Amino acid sequence: MRVLILGADGYLGWPTAMHFSARGDDVMVVDNFVKRRIELEDGIEPLQPIPTLHRRRVLWQEVEGRTLQLRVGDLTNHRFVYETLSMFKPDTIVHYAEQPSAPYSMQGRERAVFTQQNNVIGHLNLLFGMRKYTPKAHLVKLGTMGEYGTPNIDIEEGYITIKHKGREDTLPFPKTPGSFYHLSKVHDSHNLLFACRLWGLRATDLNQGVVYGIETDQTALHPDLRTSFHYDHVFGTVLNRFCAQAVAGVPLTVYGKGGQTRGFLNIRDTIQCVDIAARNPAAPGECRVFNQFTETFSINDLAALTQKAAAKIGLKVEVAHIDNPRLEAEDHYYNPKHSKLTELGLRSHLLSDVLVEEMLHAIQRASHQIRKEIIEPTVSWTGQATP
Amino acid sequence: MRVLILGADGYLGWPTAMHFSARGDDVMVVDNFVKRRIELEDGIEPLQPIPTLHRRRVLWQEVEGRTLQLRVGDLTNHRFVYETLSMFKPDTIVHYAEQPSAPYSMQGRERAVFTQQNNVIGHLNLLFGMRKYTPKAHLVKLGTMGEYGTPNIDIEEGYITIKHKGREDTLPFPKTPGSFYHLSKVHDSHNLLFACRLWGLRATDLNQGVVYGIETDQTALHPDLRTSFHYDHVFGTVLNRFCAQAVAGVPLTVYGKGGQTRGFLNIRDTIQCVDIAARNPAAPGECRVFNQFTETFSINDLAALTQKAAAKIGLKVEVAHIDNPRLEAEDHYYNPKHSKLTELGLRSHLLSDVLVEEMLHAIQRASHQIRKEIIEPTVSWTGQATP
Repeated sequence: MRVLILGADGYLGWPTAMHFSARGDDVMVVDNFVKRRIELEDGIEPLQPIPTLHRRRVLWQEVEGRTLQLRVGDLTNHRFVYETLSMFKPDTIVHYAEQPSAPYSMQGRERAVFTQQNNVIGHLNLLFGMRKYTPKAHLVKLGTMGEYGTPNIDIEEGYITIKHKGREDTLPFPKTPGSFYHLSKVHDSHNLLFACRLWGLRATDLNQGVVYGIETDQTALHPDLRTSFHYDHVFGTVLNRFCAQAVAGVPLTVYGKGGQTRGFLNIRDTIQCVDIAARNPAAPGECRVFNQFTETFSINDLAALTQKAAAKIGLKVEVAHIDNPRLEAEDHYYNPKHSKLTELGLRSHLLSDVLVEEMLHAIQRASHQIRKEIIEPTVSWTGQATP
Repeated sequence: MRVLILGADGYLGWPTAMHFSARGDDVMVVDNFVKRRIELEDGIEPLQPIPTLHRRRVLWQEVEGRTLQLRVGDLTNHRFVYETLSMFKPDTIVHYAEQPSAPYSMQGRERAVFTQQNNVIGHLNLLFGMRKYTPKAHLVKLGTMGEYGTPNIDIEEGYITIKHKGREDTLPFPKTPGSFYHLSKVHDSHNLLFACRLWGLRATDLNQGVVYGIETDQTALHPDLRTSFHYDHVFGTVLNRFCAQAVAGVPLTVYGKGGQTRGFLNIRDTIQCVDIAARNPAAPGECRVFNQFTETFSINDLAALTQKAAAKIGLKVEVAHIDNPRLEAEDHYYNPKHSKLTELGLRSHLLSDVLVEEMLHAIQRASHQIRKEIIEPTVSWTGQATP
């Protein structure tokens, strides 16, 4: 299988690229390094320095004996997209190449606009390119569970059958996202469904939960094959952040009451889910939606789990509830379905004390590099001045 | 009331501006003339030449003795938006300033991307500008009934109460739009709802049906105060096009079977609805949605109505079913609600033979200017090459 990984320099993109390559697929990796530019702009950095994508590609060849093709460019440049598709002719396109941070998107007009323009237009260019050069390719598109918000009804996988005044239809699940970033993914989902209906493209929209974890089978092969682990307030996901706080000896910062409940999954399961989607492609014209997570937790649950695991390895950890910088319900119903990937064979790595302990140990090995000043949120959803 | 009309050079914007001005409101008109540029690019033109907005503003002062303030600029330039809002300080903002044509948006990548970028980013800039300079202003935003598509259940006004597995929530009505243009309005609606929740902005999203008609109380005051009447395949709405075809002596072109049913309204009722929305503003934080149309018709209904009215004034008219260039159901359930504007006092001008006759007479007075070659559709939803 020829697999194109868009956004391959990132937390999930890089391990995904190595995974497919290790399985013997022909892999091309693409990035424009916009996330690294944002890191520079905001003075944030991952726990450990990440070698360039060029360097990691060479190292992968040395370690594994397999070649990754590499192209550097921006999806908002449609000529780059068209050239890449016409040259590489992928069977599967894994599209991670979007600005991935909700807090970033809430830092005023310029960043909100950048997020929506970058994500929506890059994705549109990709859809037009697929139509023209690879109409039979399968697009595996990263969405987010955050598209759904927290409705007071069960969240289905992408579509819901609505009975209303004696009639019935199955329609896209209504979306109430909570940031300009999440909105960009909602826009993408609408554009994607239309492109599949219109042109017969095949797509899987992965509405992914919050990912945690630091290691996959391939990142473990060599220290410089590691993936970027963020614990900061812009790119750090909550459990990763809690583990870094525990190791750093600062309180776990719970936003608001901490009753916010979300779907979570291990980074190993992200790789597994993308693999499953890729090897069981959608039918032509089908825009399939999978809710990609394995368990739900409240933020308080995760804080308690982190505390408990930390205690086992001798770390005393406090929990601090701080003003919630986000606009979100802190006490709500949450029952999203997630059976489609399981039906296709997903075998979950569930979160347990053991796994949190492993993460804590991994972070401890780099604990001297934790920068406490980039953890606390500086972006308020409603209080931010508009630049 | 200080009323800012964005997109004031257009079919609806210009009569809306005159209407508010005639009622004694302080009106500022804004346009970037992008629609006129598209007309030039595609060699299409309205039935009669339309004086510049500058000229019509002078004429309006001569005829009515009232001043319209005028600013020329583009909403995708946020500095222009910010300056306009901070200078004029509107109470009400009527936002027509988006690329309004579905066929235009389906003419390949460049135009699809232009449509979404122009509409979504311009609107985002406006929302950020409102937050900063006029947080108490009321935004009257033009959406479209086309956002809903044609679901097999009754279409509610913006939101639907869904009972699902023993629970219940009221959520945004699921959207299945049928073009990149309609998608841009769906994106706008999601962004707008979020901005109202986030910043307490007040907005009315008018999901408007298909507008027909050529005259309002103010356009009738002077020939050069007319509004741009389009009958072409890019900007011409269906009944306007049928009337032009009837006068031109060419068959009425029905796309496909003609069972497509839509909501329609008279241009006079557009003005009335916008006026009602403006004088009954949404509450702070409220994103209110009105379905803005007065009657539903199938395309076949409208063809028959046009034929009948034409016969009365001695015109023999044929109907030709041509291949449907669009992706749409041609035989479907359609029952959209539209009671909220009526409850606020809308008194509809319903379509009747008499009104169609009036339109035919108006078009006859300019019949020598009808250009038959711009009527037939050249844009196919699925067959278009991607430039």
